[in-house]
Amino acid sequence: MKKENAISNKKFVVIGGGTGTFSVLSGLKKYTDHITAIVTMADSGGSAKKERDEWGLLPSSDVRKSLIALSNGSSGDSLLLRKLFQYRYSEGRGIRGMSFGNLFLVALTKLLGSQEKAIEKAGDILKIRGRVLPVSFDKVDLVAKYENGSTVVGEHFIDDPKDNGKVKITQLATKPRTKITNEAKKAILESDVIIIGPGGFYTTILANFAVSGVKEAIMQSRSQKIFILNLMTEYGQTYEFSASTFIKELDKYLPVTSLDFVFANNAHIPDDVLKKYRKYHAIPVLNDLPKKIPFKLVSADLLSSQKIAMEKGDTLKRSLIRHDPEKIVSLCIKLLT
Amino acid sequence: MKKENAISNKKFVVIGGGTGTFSVLSGLKKYTDHITAIVTMADSGGSAKKERDEWGLLPSSDVRKSLIALSNGSSGDSLLLRKLFQYRYSEGRGIRGMSFGNLFLVALTKLLGSQEKAIEKAGDILKIRGRVLPVSFDKVDLVAKYENGSTVVGEHFIDDPKDNGKVKITQLATKPRTKITNEAKKAILESDVIIIGPGGFYTTILANFAVSGVKEAIMQSRSQKIFILNLMTEYGQTYEFSASTFIKELDKYLPVTSLDFVFANNAHIPDDVLKKYRKYHAIPVLNDLPKKIPFKLVSADLLSSQKIAMEKGDTLKRSLIRHDPEKIVSLCIKLLT
Repeated sequence: MKKENAISNKKFVVIGGGTGTFSVLSGLKKYTDHITAIVTMADSGGSAKKERDEWGLLPSSDVRKSLIALSNGSSGDSLLLRKLFQYRYSEGRGIRGMSFGNLFLVALTKLLGSQEKAIEKAGDILKIRGRVLPVSFDKVDLVAKYENGSTVVGEHFIDDPKDNGKVKITQLATKPRTKITNEAKKAILESDVIIIGPGGFYTTILANFAVSGVKEAIMQSRSQKIFILNLMTEYGQTYEFSASTFIKELDKYLPVTSLDFVFANNAHIPDDVLKKYRKYHAIPVLNDLPKKIPFKLVSADLLSSQKIAMEKGDTLKRSLIRHDPEKIVSLCIKLLT
Repeated sequence: MKKENAISNKKFVVIGGGTGTFSVLSGLKKYTDHITAIVTMADSGGSAKKERDEWGLLPSSDVRKSLIALSNGSSGDSLLLRKLFQYRYSEGRGIRGMSFGNLFLVALTKLLGSQEKAIEKAGDILKIRGRVLPVSFDKVDLVAKYENGSTVVGEHFIDDPKDNGKVKITQLATKPRTKITNEAKKAILESDVIIIGPGGFYTTILANFAVSGVKEAIMQSRSQKIFILNLMTEYGQTYEFSASTFIKELDKYLPVTSLDFVFANNAHIPDDVLKKYRKYHAIPVLNDLPKKIPFKLVSADLLSSQKIAMEKGDTLKRSLIRHDPEKIVSLCIKLLT
């Protein structure tokens, strides 16, 4: 049996939702459709605010990104729909900055009566491989407590701090408390491989662990567990974090003794890129893990060679470098089979 | 050969774009896909204003309605897309009152680079039978001159007059002047049957004739020509019009000697419906045509028995009664074969 075939029979759960998870999902979908992306719906900024306040819905940005990542449209109408889903309006009062994908999900929710059905149906229309499951359908806010004693409510304010950027988050929770859905729990329990990250560490990854029952389901599952370290630190979330800091922090939400593998990038990041990141107080994640660790550290070139440009209409800062989908999956194939 | 088969081989051109044309297109698509809907893009109110002013595009409401009318989605994703296309947002600052279909066409135009391509592609996605062709792609305003000497610029203000509702329009033009596209001209010249109306008499029907070359193409074509009279008068456009007034007015834009048939409804309109219309100063179109007319008058029951409800989020007044698609097509089958 070919190694690729072996991976195609495994059931993957990918926890995250942002651009990091996008790379993982984009890579995996070429080998299997046994993929479940688990994401939170706790955004609060930009068009998410509109979805929450004006439509009474849960924000769907991470859902949308994961749907696009898994969409299999390589030609014809499904490719076009994929592009439409990514399209962000650059003009129009009240619409500028909104993505078509989110407006699509809003209309679909109104037509079908629930966001759950809308997400499933959007997946059908986009011909996705696998499925996207929100970790919970309750309307909650992320709450971060910082080491200086302050508390910030709302994903948007945690992601984009003003003066708080260098202050460490000591505790992440949701308000009110919320519980994992039965579907997401089932997906985790029945999975063969769980991939956590990379991505916005608190706002897209640990945000899932702030939901009751996620940690327990992961620990209970017999699947192999991979944590993918970020390429760069992020001001406001992981300022000056090294690999050890990431692992120490993750351990508060999921005992790292349950991890099988941790992936770290060892490829050099170009100097001109580093210079740009420095403006945002971001540096590469230094691999300073000690020799004695309860998981296997896999250090490899995980860097995509594709240059990322800002998209027209983008209002959020975006990462300039990405994990390479193919490199991540190659590593999975090598290790898991 | 069955009569239905005979009609399926004929090439139809339908000129209009509003709810009246919707009925004609809905009926025709069950028998043939040789249908070209010719519509104007000269709206100026509501979301049309947004399309014009904020996106720099031509308003697509009549295009959208005709696409929906021709869409052949009777099940699965294409039915869902059809419903989505009709969906109008009832909430959301800057979005309330906009239709998903228009936002879809805006995004598609931005992706594909032209409204022409976007309309064609939307037709593919909605699996329409036939096609929808704007009569012109120039950015123009409708201009109406009234018998009291006043001039009104903008489709929206003609459609929804304040004090001017009872004053007759004496001349309709576009500003600046515009010309029929080659495609629309070709469709008219190659057609076997041209159906004009029913619908908003000045704003959706004669608006096409205000475009240079439309009249000439219709007169030059050897097709059979049908004009369908409206069921009800409309305050501001056709206040207290009878069948003769319609014909006299139409004659200014297209010599009625070129018509083969005029369809008039003779079914009784229920009293409760008439009562509602009276609030809008609207009455049934009285058939007062003299015996000597240069076309065949076909008086028949054309009324749909379906009750029309206001849609959630509707901001425009809509007709409460409609032409019956099946009755119109049956008449066509009877007369044209």
